[in-house]
Amino acid sequence: MKPSKIEHIGIAVKDLDKSISLYEEMLGYKCYKIEEVKDQKVRTAFFKIGETKIELLEATEAASPIARFIEKRGEGMHHLAFAVNDIEKRLHNMKETGIDLIDRKARKGADGLDIAFLHPGSTSGVLIEICENKNKD
Amino acid sequence: MKPSKIEHIGIAVKDLDKSISLYEEMLGYKCYKIEEVKDQKVRTAFFKIGETKIELLEATEAASPIARFIEKRGEGMHHLAFAVNDIEKRLHNMKETGIDLIDRKARKGADGLDIAFLHPGSTSGVLIEICENKNKD
Repeated sequence: MKPSKIEHIGIAVKDLDKSISLYEEMLGYKCYKIEEVKDQKVRTAFFKIGETKIELLEATEAASPIARFIEKRGEGMHHLAFAVNDIEKRLHNMKETGIDLIDRKARKGADGLDIAFLHPGSTSGVLIEICENKNKD
Repeated sequence: MKPSKIEHIGIAVKDLDKSISLYEEMLGYKCYKIEEVKDQKVRTAFFKIGETKIELLEATEAASPIARFIEKRGEGMHHLAFAVNDIEKRLHNMKETGIDLIDRKARKGADGLDIAFLHPGSTSGVLIEICENKNKD
């Protein structure tokens, strides 16, 4: 996949506003954007640290993947996202090397990115997202 | 803390050699170092992606924190490490803002870094490491 960088780390939280305050105080950086992603049933908050982002994720419904994650494992790191070019080709390559895909095609995610998830069963238990910024890259 | 970057993401794995092969194939980058950290009872493998590293961690003993993590939660993301300057001052500041510390003083970690862990109970469930490269920074 030869990612250019780690685009972001997603962290599942119970109370977004509370965690924003906590991370702002801890990191010394301000959250630069809050965004709701309706089809993922999440509200997200972003911090920029060097070339990478921290994405806090709060469920907006009980059926949200984030709600199910927290119910099972508690709050904590949820996914790891790599920035790639030509996301459709990368997905094709991943599949060819035997990695199970959650998303067979890229779809729209938060922060203007085209995104797709790989199955953690294929990646030592890590939910990996690959993403491409087709607007800026 | 005003970290300059995300220094690395630590991933707990059962079989380091197997996961190195998997990550090499998936990422398209070679592991650049394998190192045993005896006092942490882990064997680690590093990948560089942009300014950040992926650190795969395998337990070398049943009493390793990584063995206990995997027993409880399975393989997956274990900790998130921020690069800071003046780690002792940062630890002091964290404590003053009410964040519980696992390490009250910095100690030697993998890859030549001075490291300290914050308690996940204070950080929305994320095991956060702060680290300083006193040799290069």
